[in-house]
Amino acid sequence: MVLTAPRHMVLVAGIVALLAVPVAALDDPGPLAVAKQGSFFVGGREVRSDTLSTVPAYAPIGTITVDQMYVRYQIPVETRGRPITLIHGCCLTGKTWETTPDGRMGWDEYFLRRGHAVYVIDQVARGRSAADPSVINSVKLGKTPPNRLPPVFSAGHEAAWAIFRFGPEYPRVYPGMRFPLDAIGEFWKQMVSDWHDALPTPNPTVSALSELAIRLDGTVLVSHSQSGIYPFQTAALNPRGIAGIIAIEPGACPDPDADLAPYMKLPILVLWGDYVDLSPRWAPRLKECQAFAEAVNKRGGKVEVIELPKLGRRGNSHMLMQDSNSLDIADWLLAWIDRNIGKQTTK
Amino acid sequence: MVLTAPRHMVLVAGIVALLAVPVAALDDPGPLAVAKQGSFFVGGREVRSDTLSTVPAYAPIGTITVDQMYVRYQIPVETRGRPITLIHGCCLTGKTWETTPDGRMGWDEYFLRRGHAVYVIDQVARGRSAADPSVINSVKLGKTPPNRLPPVFSAGHEAAWAIFRFGPEYPRVYPGMRFPLDAIGEFWKQMVSDWHDALPTPNPTVSALSELAIRLDGTVLVSHSQSGIYPFQTAALNPRGIAGIIAIEPGACPDPDADLAPYMKLPILVLWGDYVDLSPRWAPRLKECQAFAEAVNKRGGKVEVIELPKLGRRGNSHMLMQDSNSLDIADWLLAWIDRNIGKQTTK
Repeated sequence: MVLTAPRHMVLVAGIVALLAVPVAALDDPGPLAVAKQGSFFVGGREVRSDTLSTVPAYAPIGTITVDQMYVRYQIPVETRGRPITLIHGCCLTGKTWETTPDGRMGWDEYFLRRGHAVYVIDQVARGRSAADPSVINSVKLGKTPPNRLPPVFSAGHEAAWAIFRFGPEYPRVYPGMRFPLDAIGEFWKQMVSDWHDALPTPNPTVSALSELAIRLDGTVLVSHSQSGIYPFQTAALNPRGIAGIIAIEPGACPDPDADLAPYMKLPILVLWGDYVDLSPRWAPRLKECQAFAEAVNKRGGKVEVIELPKLGRRGNSHMLMQDSNSLDIADWLLAWIDRNIGKQTTK
Repeated sequence: MVLTAPRHMVLVAGIVALLAVPVAALDDPGPLAVAKQGSFFVGGREVRSDTLSTVPAYAPIGTITVDQMYVRYQIPVETRGRPITLIHGCCLTGKTWETTPDGRMGWDEYFLRRGHAVYVIDQVARGRSAADPSVINSVKLGKTPPNRLPPVFSAGHEAAWAIFRFGPEYPRVYPGMRFPLDAIGEFWKQMVSDWHDALPTPNPTVSALSELAIRLDGTVLVSHSQSGIYPFQTAALNPRGIAGIIAIEPGACPDPDADLAPYMKLPILVLWGDYVDLSPRWAPRLKECQAFAEAVNKRGGKVEVIELPKLGRRGNSHMLMQDSNSLDIADWLLAWIDRNIGKQTTK
C-alpha cells in the first residue's frame, strides 16, 4: 500500500461514525454513512462442457462455474436492526430494489439509512449470476435437437402490464394507480431474460440463500413475486440464519397440506398491493396464501397476510417497492420487522 | 411521505458532509461518506417479436427493450476529480471493479474514497443489461434454423487462465504472479456468458457510453480488455463529455492508418501488466497500441503506452484491478489523471 492516512484523518473518520445518524427520507436526505460495502458470490458448482463456445477466439471445451448467486451489500454505521436480504422476481434483477424508474430512492438505500444492513441478490442465472450456454451452442453445432433449447423467456411490455397490475390490460390503467407510469420506459429497461424454467426445482437460488442466511446469522428474507416461494423453501432446507420472511406478492405460498413444521417458529408476513381481486392471475394466489396462513396459525404459528388497501393504502401495483408511496410502505415494513423480529441484531 | 426528520438531524447531516474527508486505503479505512448513489439505464430500443417465450405463463408476442446499459454510481461528499466510468471486459460484468475475489476493496470504492464519482456499467446484453432471447425461442419452435442461434459463449477456466495471463497455460503460474490465485474459485464465479459476438459493430454499449459521457459532462472512460476499443469508438462517435481515456490491456487500439482526428485532443493512457511479451494473444496487441500511440503523437496528440514492469511494478496479470497491488496501481492511475486531465470537475 502506497498511501497512508495522517492520524487526524483517521480521527475525522471516527467523528463521522459517531455523527452519522440515519436521516429519514427527505427531498435531500443528506450524505449516507456506510460502514462497509462490497459484493461477493455464494453457492456455485463446476460444469464441464464441450460446447462452451462456437467462437474461434474461445475454446469449446472447458469448465465453467454456474449456480452462484451475486450479492451486493452495504452495512450502515449505526446498525439498528437485522440485515435485510432483497430477492427480486421474474424477469428482473437486483435493480428492482435500487433507484426507481422515476429516479426516487430505492428500498436498498432506504433500509440502509434506517439502520439495516442490506443485501441485494441477483437470482442464479440472472443479472450478474452466470447462466450456462452449453445447450445453446450444442444445438447451434447440430449436436442437440432444437426442442431441447432452454426455455429462456422475456416478458413483453404488453403482457407484463397486466402481470404487474398497472391495469386490467395494456394500456388501460387502474384508477388511482401509484406506479410511476410516466417513467414506464425506464421500468421496461429493468427487465431481462429469465432462465428460471431451465433450472431445477427448487431453484439453486434457494440453497444459495440458505448459505447467505447462515453467514449473516439472522436475516429477514424479503422476496417478490416469482421468488416468493424461495424463502419458504430455504426455511424448509435449513432454518438456520432466517430471522423472518416477508413475501411481497408471492407467486406461490407453501401448500397448506404440506409439512408446515419449517414455518411454525418464523415471523412471516405476506404483503399485497391493490387491485388483486381484479386480477385473474393474482386473486387465486392471495387466496392460497390466506389458506397457508390459516393452516400455520391454527397450529400456533405466526403468519400475517396483509392487503395494503385494508390499511388505507390504495393504488399499489405489483411493483409496490417502486410505487409513488414506496417509502411509506417501507416504513410500515420496518415497523413490522421491529414488532415481530426485534430491533437488535446478532451481528 | 410519512417520515420527516427533526431539524437537528438535518444539521447533523450537514456536519457529516463537512467532515467526510475521504480516507486512504487502510486495513480499516473507516466509514464511507456518500453524497448520492443509485442506478439507472442509458440507451435502449424497442424490439417487437413473436418468439419472446415458449413458456405458457408468458406470451410469445410482444415488445421488449434491449441495448440499454445498466449504470450504478456513487458520488463522494467531497469531489476532488472527474467522474470515472468503469467498463468491464469479456465474459465479465461490472463486478470486475467491486470487491476482489479475495475480499479486498475494489477500484469502485477506492476511487470514490479518493474523491471521484464512480460509474460502473454492465455492457449491453450482459449482467443487468438485457439480452434478446427471440432467436433462441424461434429456433426452439422450429421457425429458424439452429445455425442462426446467437454465438453466446462462456470462457472456460482452462482457456481463460492463459487469456487472463495467470500463467502460460492452465494450471502453470508465471513466477511472481500477483493475482490472488488462492481465491481463483471466486474469480470464476464472476464470469458470465458473453453475447458480444451476437451484437452489431460498434457494440451498442458505445452509443450508451456516449450518452452517459454527455450526461456526466466530462468523465474518464476506463476500459478493460474486450471493451478496450469502446472508448475510442465513443470518441469517434462524439467527443462530447469525454475528459480522457484509460485503456487497460485493450483487446484492440484504433488502426494507426485510420482517421486519428477524434483522438488528437484527448489525454489517453494505455496500461499493460506483466508477462505481455510471453503471451501470443497479448504481445501483438501491445505492439498495435504502440503503433497507434506513435501515429497520434507524431501528429501532436498525447497517448501514453505504459507497461507496469517498466515502472518497477512486476507480477501483474490481465486482471490487474484485482491483483494484490491493485490499489497501488489505482494510486498511480489517479496521479496520472491529476497530471493529464486535472483535479477539478465540471459538475
